[in-house]
Amino acid sequence: MGSAIYTRSNQMQNIKLTLAYDGTNYHGFATQPGGNTISDTLKKALAQLTSEEIKLITASRTDAGVHAKCQVVNFLTNSTIPIEVLPKAINSRLPEDIVVYDACQVDASFHARFSAKFRRYRYSILTAKYPDVFSRRYAYWLSYSLHLENMVEAAGFLVGVRDFTAFASEIKRIKNPVRNLEELSIDKKGAFIHFNFKANAFLHGMIRTIVGTLLDVGRGKLTPEAVKDILESKDRAEAGTLAPPQGLCLMEVGY
Amino acid sequence: MGSAIYTRSNQMQNIKLTLAYDGTNYHGFATQPGGNTISDTLKKALAQLTSEEIKLITASRTDAGVHAKCQVVNFLTNSTIPIEVLPKAINSRLPEDIVVYDACQVDASFHARFSAKFRRYRYSILTAKYPDVFSRRYAYWLSYSLHLENMVEAAGFLVGVRDFTAFASEIKRIKNPVRNLEELSIDKKGAFIHFNFKANAFLHGMIRTIVGTLLDVGRGKLTPEAVKDILESKDRAEAGTLAPPQGLCLMEVGY
Repeated sequence: MGSAIYTRSNQMQNIKLTLAYDGTNYHGFATQPGGNTISDTLKKALAQLTSEEIKLITASRTDAGVHAKCQVVNFLTNSTIPIEVLPKAINSRLPEDIVVYDACQVDASFHARFSAKFRRYRYSILTAKYPDVFSRRYAYWLSYSLHLENMVEAAGFLVGVRDFTAFASEIKRIKNPVRNLEELSIDKKGAFIHFNFKANAFLHGMIRTIVGTLLDVGRGKLTPEAVKDILESKDRAEAGTLAPPQGLCLMEVGY
Repeated sequence: MGSAIYTRSNQMQNIKLTLAYDGTNYHGFATQPGGNTISDTLKKALAQLTSEEIKLITASRTDAGVHAKCQVVNFLTNSTIPIEVLPKAINSRLPEDIVVYDACQVDASFHARFSAKFRRYRYSILTAKYPDVFSRRYAYWLSYSLHLENMVEAAGFLVGVRDFTAFASEIKRIKNPVRNLEELSIDKKGAFIHFNFKANAFLHGMIRTIVGTLLDVGRGKLTPEAVKDILESKDRAEAGTLAPPQGLCLMEVGY
């Protein structure tokens, strides 16, 4: 069996992980020189476990302070650790604010980013006289109430296949600013308001800029129709400010 | 008006505050030499605001890592800050994990501890294969399932006016170990199990020791009837281990 190493390499596995994280203490998902990112932390745990340098592919790179209930990554490995014990083995090497809760072997063609058909995100707001200590890390607190119907009307102008240039950060780097925003619904649950986004993909900063703009509608600074004009302007300067990161959470990646 | 100071002192106000806190980063409520307690932090904010040294009376002193949705304190002050702006003024001097959400002037006889008729606490457990990053600070995670019916049966032996010596920490300092446990219900909501406690007052460590003992019942280490024997033994060594603090939250103080 002199070809064991070659054989093993030939059987390189493509592993898909599903994970959740509390992004409060991280500089986002993507690898950075400082290293305090979800990706760096996960790669370090995987390297300890597999004794390999791992290259991670990610479904949706989240910004600093943004959370995930369901993020998906994949990586190639020669490791023969049984797939069913993989989540527990990785979790024992991760801090408690990142948890892998599923691992499976996938086809060689699976790519966490390019194979994804849609992403769902949720942005949560708490409207209350005083902040709430228990949700402060996961919702954006506003002390004033919002005009929900006007926000829903404004959101309606954004749903569909649109050029979202006006709502994107760093638009220069984007080749194609058209995205298919399949859903943008707004739910009220007690003192919380949830903005539910579903799209094939999102431009960088798109969700938080849309939320910031809809909040301007909710407090009467903009009319619902103004959001249509902003979209058509394709000018980022026309849109509202970026809503803060703690309200945002990646909820699902669909394949 | 040479008697202004005397007059002011004579009109000393008794102020009742209702507050919430995330206890994760604190060494409990009660003042300690180290100072990193809820009481020390609150007193510091009140001293800044009133230029007085404040003596706080507390409804229920919580241990390190224990939370409160509704804690009540009172203090005497000569300050003439209008009561309606007091919560906001205090909150601006507090870290974001402590929030005062009500302030009112009360009768001189009001005493946050001795006037309280009952306290409600909730202990939360998550039973799931993997921990949950979003509830990890507020629920005790168990990877195994629990026999709910047996726990409910065991809890029934504890409800009533009982000597809770077997479930108390530091029993030597307690003159009277009898408490009226008016309610001990167990709810299941999805993957969460909530233990709801209501009593006139609780002994130190009582709730977490009861939960630890009921968990021994839930996983089959103890029979429900064994809990009756433990109660009657009045021996702390018979009861289960203290459940960890993060699952515990003070929910209400009734007057």
